[in-house]
Amino acid sequence: MADTGSHGYSDTKAAHLARLRRIVGQVRGLARMVEEDTYCIDILTQVAATTKALQATALQLLDEHLEHCVTAAVAKGGADKDEKLREVSQALARLTRV
Amino acid sequence: MADTGSHGYSDTKAAHLARLRRIVGQVRGLARMVEEDTYCIDILTQVAATTKALQATALQLLDEHLEHCVTAAVAKGGADKDEKLREVSQALARLTRV
Amino acid sequence: MADTGSHGYSDTKAAHLARLRRIVGQVRGLARMVEEDTYCIDILTQVAATTKALQATALQLLDEHLEHCVTAAVAKGGADKDEKLREVSQALARLTRV
Amino acid sequence: MADTGSHGYSDTKAAHLARLRRIVGQVRGLARMVEEDTYCIDILTQVAATTKALQATALQLLDEHLEHCVTAAVAKGGADKDEKLREVSQALARLTRV
Repeated sequence: MADTGSHGYSDTKAAHLARLRRIVGQVRGLARMVEEDTYCIDILTQVAATTKALQATALQLLDEHLEHCVTAAVAKGGADKDEKLREVSQALARLTRV
Repeated sequence: MADTGSHGYSDTKAAHLARLRRIVGQVRGLARMVEEDTYCIDILTQVAATTKALQATALQLLDEHLEHCVTAAVAKGGADKDEKLREVSQALARLTRV
Repeated sequence: MADTGSHGYSDTKAAHLARLRRIVGQVRGLARMVEEDTYCIDILTQVAATTKALQATALQLLDEHLEHCVTAAVAKGGADKDEKLREVSQALARLTRV
Repeated sequence: MADTGSHGYSDTKAAHLARLRRIVGQVRGLARMVEEDTYCIDILTQVAATTKALQATALQLLDEHLEHCVTAAVAKGGADKDEKLREVSQALARLTRV
């Protein structure tokens, strides 16, 4: 069962869901372009736009995570704070693909 | 009506469609995670994996474009060759987001 | 005159300077490769390695910034906290080039 | 001894060298900022600019490589063409860090 209301993105859940639904539409659009033999370069332009939309989602989630979860952990201090900062660091490394 | 068989990815269309369907599944999975209040960091890990899958699709399309369309244009030479190389250059710039 | 000891990277200054000196060496190496007509693909491999080293430096600075400056601002709360979180958000957007 | 005139970037060597010298200056500037305890976020802004300059160099080299080396290999055809296309594919994967 879902743990409700406790995450950074709780207040913005509807906005995230709307954005992800649009991205689903973009990826389906890519499949349709391949199906209809669209010119490769035009497909690549849409792949770049879709990737950008996904990255924007990630940044938004990360902002909210910093603002809520990390801020709360910092206020408490101790091991939980260190763990949260370590997690953020690893998430950033994955998102920037270093 | 679609222009069939003329693009770089014609032989690999089924593979591209299968891959894009998997990516649709990944983005729907992201929406489900948000819906179920999954921990932000775990969502970010999946966003990074989805972005990677999209970029892999782009690189695959670009490889095939170089191998087929660009190669054919180079063989013909002239303005078409220059146009194709210019297009590839712009697509690369978009994909690496410079 | 420099404001000493107040930043996230104060304790790791020597390590950052050593790393940046290595990156200067890498970029000079790239110039030498161009000077000596090295094969383009080999230069590109080194450009990718240098970019990776720069991104690693950015992530390290960001980790330390979160651990020190942002943590301190969060502890104080108020406008300074909001400003620090906004700055981090913008820095992340620049680093991931959305 | 250098093999002169045979690479994609032969005509633009001076421009590449000038650009790389500017990047050396940017990285030295980063070291100076760390030395002078500049605010982390301001350093990050300059790291992002430097990374962008490096990526622009990579794209320029790649354009020229496609225009000269790959075009020549395609004209010859055979194993050399396949090898050149494979190399470009791998270089792109490294530059986009998939």
